[in-house]
Amino acid sequence: GPGGSDTSEPAGADERYQGLKITTDKKVFRIQLNRPSKKNALTWQMYNDIAAALGDAAEDKNVSVAVITGTGDYYCSGNDLSNFANVKPEEIAQMALNGKVVLSNFVKTFIDFPKPLIALINGPAVGISVTVLGLFDAVYCTDKATFHTPFSQLGQSPEGCSSYLFPKMMGNAKAGELLLFNKKITAQEACERNLVTQVFPEDVFQKETEALVSYYGSLPPQSLKYSKTLNRSAERELLHKVNEAECDLLVERWQSQECINAIMSFFSRKANL
Amino acid sequence: GPGGSDTSEPAGADERYQGLKITTDKKVFRIQLNRPSKKNALTWQMYNDIAAALGDAAEDKNVSVAVITGTGDYYCSGNDLSNFANVKPEEIAQMALNGKVVLSNFVKTFIDFPKPLIALINGPAVGISVTVLGLFDAVYCTDKATFHTPFSQLGQSPEGCSSYLFPKMMGNAKAGELLLFNKKITAQEACERNLVTQVFPEDVFQKETEALVSYYGSLPPQSLKYSKTLNRSAERELLHKVNEAECDLLVERWQSQECINAIMSFFSRKANL
Amino acid sequence: GPGGSDTSEPAGADERYQGLKITTDKKVFRIQLNRPSKKNALTWQMYNDIAAALGDAAEDKNVSVAVITGTGDYYCSGNDLSNFANVKPEEIAQMALNGKVVLSNFVKTFIDFPKPLIALINGPAVGISVTVLGLFDAVYCTDKATFHTPFSQLGQSPEGCSSYLFPKMMGNAKAGELLLFNKKITAQEACERNLVTQVFPEDVFQKETEALVSYYGSLPPQSLKYSKTLNRSAERELLHKVNEAECDLLVERWQSQECINAIMSFFSRKANL
Repeated sequence: GPGGSDTSEPAGADERYQGLKITTDKKVFRIQLNRPSKKNALTWQMYNDIAAALGDAAEDKNVSVAVITGTGDYYCSGNDLSNFANVKPEEIAQMALNGKVVLSNFVKTFIDFPKPLIALINGPAVGISVTVLGLFDAVYCTDKATFHTPFSQLGQSPEGCSSYLFPKMMGNAKAGELLLFNKKITAQEACERNLVTQVFPEDVFQKETEALVSYYGSLPPQSLKYSKTLNRSAERELLHKVNEAECDLLVERWQSQECINAIMSFFSRKANL
Repeated sequence: GPGGSDTSEPAGADERYQGLKITTDKKVFRIQLNRPSKKNALTWQMYNDIAAALGDAAEDKNVSVAVITGTGDYYCSGNDLSNFANVKPEEIAQMALNGKVVLSNFVKTFIDFPKPLIALINGPAVGISVTVLGLFDAVYCTDKATFHTPFSQLGQSPEGCSSYLFPKMMGNAKAGELLLFNKKITAQEACERNLVTQVFPEDVFQKETEALVSYYGSLPPQSLKYSKTLNRSAERELLHKVNEAECDLLVERWQSQECINAIMSFFSRKANL
Repeated sequence: GPGGSDTSEPAGADERYQGLKITTDKKVFRIQLNRPSKKNALTWQMYNDIAAALGDAAEDKNVSVAVITGTGDYYCSGNDLSNFANVKPEEIAQMALNGKVVLSNFVKTFIDFPKPLIALINGPAVGISVTVLGLFDAVYCTDKATFHTPFSQLGQSPEGCSSYLFPKMMGNAKAGELLLFNKKITAQEACERNLVTQVFPEDVFQKETEALVSYYGSLPPQSLKYSKTLNRSAERELLHKVNEAECDLLVERWQSQECINAIMSFFSRKANL
């Protein structure tokens, strides 16, 4: 697995990661999704690297809070569907099992992260980058952000503990639109549905959120860590069960004809452009 | 019990049900409460028929999603208080036990329904027709709809898993007004409280919601079914316990002097009109 | 411990309590925080007296609902930091253990209170007076009210079951701002976050809320009591566990250098004014 962030050079980026820019500055650990040509889509390697980097940040005494943001116009376009490309029919079952290991470990890291975790959503967010937001402690976005989890359209199913946390934060009737019916929502709608803490106009987004994050990094670190862990504790065990159930269903879905058809259709549309 | 809907004639109404119009068209199963002269109030028989019809829809491979709506100005005025009329004092205990069997089975059907369930609220909704909404995956209403659960006014208590799901979706402080203090809320307030997904102006309500439902019916059915079941799974066991506790309390309430007085007062007001 | 409220003189205040004015009138039990010179900050004695008074109200057949409100401009400025003053270093551990007994018993009383509980927030609310609001059945406030839980700023951590109930009512992303990052919110924001049921302009606040409370007191008392108890029952056991975990963490926090520094700094700022 990838090594930890280099906290002896707090302001420099760790060069060991592909597609990620990782820095630590004034107690703030920052993961910047850095693959703008692919709208910051996540490769299997990036899932593993983000999980490992958060694991390091959890242990690092120089880190009080962690931030995830994106480079360019997108926050994150979700799972890179290339993860499913060039898989021969006889390899699909193994690919699905491997995918489950990667995904369940990724989400597990968010469930167990012991320090405040903040998302700065600089643009559209899709799929897994939306579903894990229920596990963050603050989510700030620009008014240009959108939130989209097109699971059934792709023959797939919810993950990131969203099957439990979305109904909890916004009620079944609003969660259903997102998790079952592919509705794309605006920044303002995401805020009304409690997925987002606050929406900022794009021209002040960076300045305002940096000020907030900087303040959060200055707070007593033990209080932050123990309080965050306390907030999570009543449901931690349940969230791990939810994550496993979600990943088990995805193993079935990734091998289903509905999913295979949807992904083949995606790639033929792409090839015809 | 009543038989299944006739899925070999998908666009025709099933004539076996009294007070209900049941159809299946293009993967959309629809229960239309069809007793407008009584504001679509539910008789014990209608409770049983709705539960049986949903049971059929759960099994029917031609059904992807299910819809419940009402005929006329009302969505549903709730439990038909005539269910309690002409009950002799010595029969009240047995009536309460019978009512519990009907109600708990009715709510159980909503908890376990394995496919997306959508309410199209065409007008005022009262009592049980409101409380089960927490178990739906989308709730669309006209701006003429209102939502009212006057339990304590009638000496009764919450059902439909609302005692758990209303505090979950809107917080204790807002749920209390509905479940304890008989507050009638508007469509917009119901949306803000996460009971409703979206409010439509009355003149476009039918057209807009038919388009949504038709789209939902066209989605990959297995993804819909398995995702819906996943969304429900973390709390299914708890919801069954809540349903039982709610029904047990109603058995006590229906035999209480507070309830008997309130219902007698209802019928004398009616007789004096 | 303090005795019960004197229900034989329903409209008169019970004189046995310091800093509290306690009355019962027309089935409405009322605790008025009555220490305006200290912004109604809570001494250890007041915690115990409120718990004892609620215990009496729970048993009193003349009480249908209970109300808590404040005297003067503030609702309540939270835990009186004088509770921590003049504690010698060698006494801190014992003070922390004693504080836990008082706090956990106080919150336990709110979890188990079997009748509807209403807060009338007449001005700013801080700390414990905010965190227990998740256990109320209705929370009405004036537009002058604010809500502030500056735990990490004081080296402390959430209590009052807020670590569980705030994420439940408003989602993790909004709860984090309050429980981790010391954000003070307005009345309107508190209403949008489901902490508050409804906001009233200050000039009509008292009249409007008295009318509501008076109506609530007139409702069938058994229905109110059993329904309230039902609403609480699904999570009662969990809430007691959350309360214990929160108090255990505070025992650690109150003895931590972060907390001691923050409180010393508070008193030196005060001394320098």
